[in-house]
Amino acid sequence: MDKEISSATLRRLPRYLFYLRGLQQKGEDRISASRIADDLDVQHTQVRKDLACTGAEGVPKVGHLVTDLIRSIEDFLNWNCSSEAFLVGVGHLGTALLGFKAFEETGLRIIAAFDSDPKKVGKALHGVEVLDLQKLPSVSRKKRVRIGIITVPGEHAQGVAEKMVKCGIQAIWNFAPVQLDLPPEVIVENMEMQASLALLSFKLKQKLAGGKNQAID
Amino acid sequence: MDKEISSATLRRLPRYLFYLRGLQQKGEDRISASRIADDLDVQHTQVRKDLACTGAEGVPKVGHLVTDLIRSIEDFLNWNCSSEAFLVGVGHLGTALLGFKAFEETGLRIIAAFDSDPKKVGKALHGVEVLDLQKLPSVSRKKRVRIGIITVPGEHAQGVAEKMVKCGIQAIWNFAPVQLDLPPEVIVENMEMQASLALLSFKLKQKLAGGKNQAID
Repeated sequence: MDKEISSATLRRLPRYLFYLRGLQQKGEDRISASRIADDLDVQHTQVRKDLACTGAEGVPKVGHLVTDLIRSIEDFLNWNCSSEAFLVGVGHLGTALLGFKAFEETGLRIIAAFDSDPKKVGKALHGVEVLDLQKLPSVSRKKRVRIGIITVPGEHAQGVAEKMVKCGIQAIWNFAPVQLDLPPEVIVENMEMQASLALLSFKLKQKLAGGKNQAID
Repeated sequence: MDKEISSATLRRLPRYLFYLRGLQQKGEDRISASRIADDLDVQHTQVRKDLACTGAEGVPKVGHLVTDLIRSIEDFLNWNCSSEAFLVGVGHLGTALLGFKAFEETGLRIIAAFDSDPKKVGKALHGVEVLDLQKLPSVSRKKRVRIGIITVPGEHAQGVAEKMVKCGIQAIWNFAPVQLDLPPEVIVENMEMQASLALLSFKLKQKLAGGKNQAID
């Protein structure tokens, strides 16, 4: 089932997951792909395809058990077990991420934050201690952390990324607006805010032009 | 040429654009789709398709003029003229966005920020004045701003969004981790950080499992 998964499918799965958790809280136990499609404004066939990728099997005319579907998506994304991460760069963006409650739902747990600014080191932000960046290697030796989050200004991102890789980080979530140059075995996911803005700009342009053509999901 | 544009194409266009601007700064004047594909690690046919969407026309064996290609993408995304925006919610995330230099490259200009916290009102952050949220209607009447950026906590997002719509905002860029319920004519683009994290988590899971299966772009 894990052949080629499109990034568009992967991007949609969290949306299904949070929607399903909402249903669960309301006490609903069954759901059809069609209703998910209608409620989230995604094409019906697309929802079916996306869910099939995770290995979820619905029953015709009955639908899916909400709990089963949640487990399928969580397993598929590996969000049912806790993934520990380091964050480097405790500016406004880094601080915002440390306090971002929604990460808990993804299993991501930022266990330490690093900065090179002595004024920030030693503080605890949202329960996470800020350590001197120079301690990254020694802390890394003790913990087996695989995910590194970069929230430093663009000009420092490459250096921080290289430090992370040396310390055994295998996947980097990069919020700095630069392209990182790293060995191919390192997974890099760029948080491209401009990509989201591109969708907004295009749709607004279409709307102002009075066009009916729309971006599809 | 503006038929159905996939969101994946729209998401890739900024990456091409920033890459092309980099080439321009280095003084390069011609580029082939193949080289873009190789440098950005996107499939060749995909780059050709994406560029064709913008109406850019390359010459076989010669390629594209870098300046033409930049103009095509900017026109397509409407990033060559300045788009003014309001931001509501001057916490850490909002402050980070106000200082985000990379927005300048997209034409987005945040002309005023709003917050309901009296301690924040009256300050200027990165050159943008923070106004009392109650002033949103009166300021809106004076300026014709179409884009609203929401960086308030989840529980306040719906209320702020409704206020924005009443004030004539036509497109909302939502950074709060909630689904907004708004009239269908309002464009809403959610900055889904979890979508980006889903790609990272899935690729890391594949890697740790030693699988060769990869998410495709």
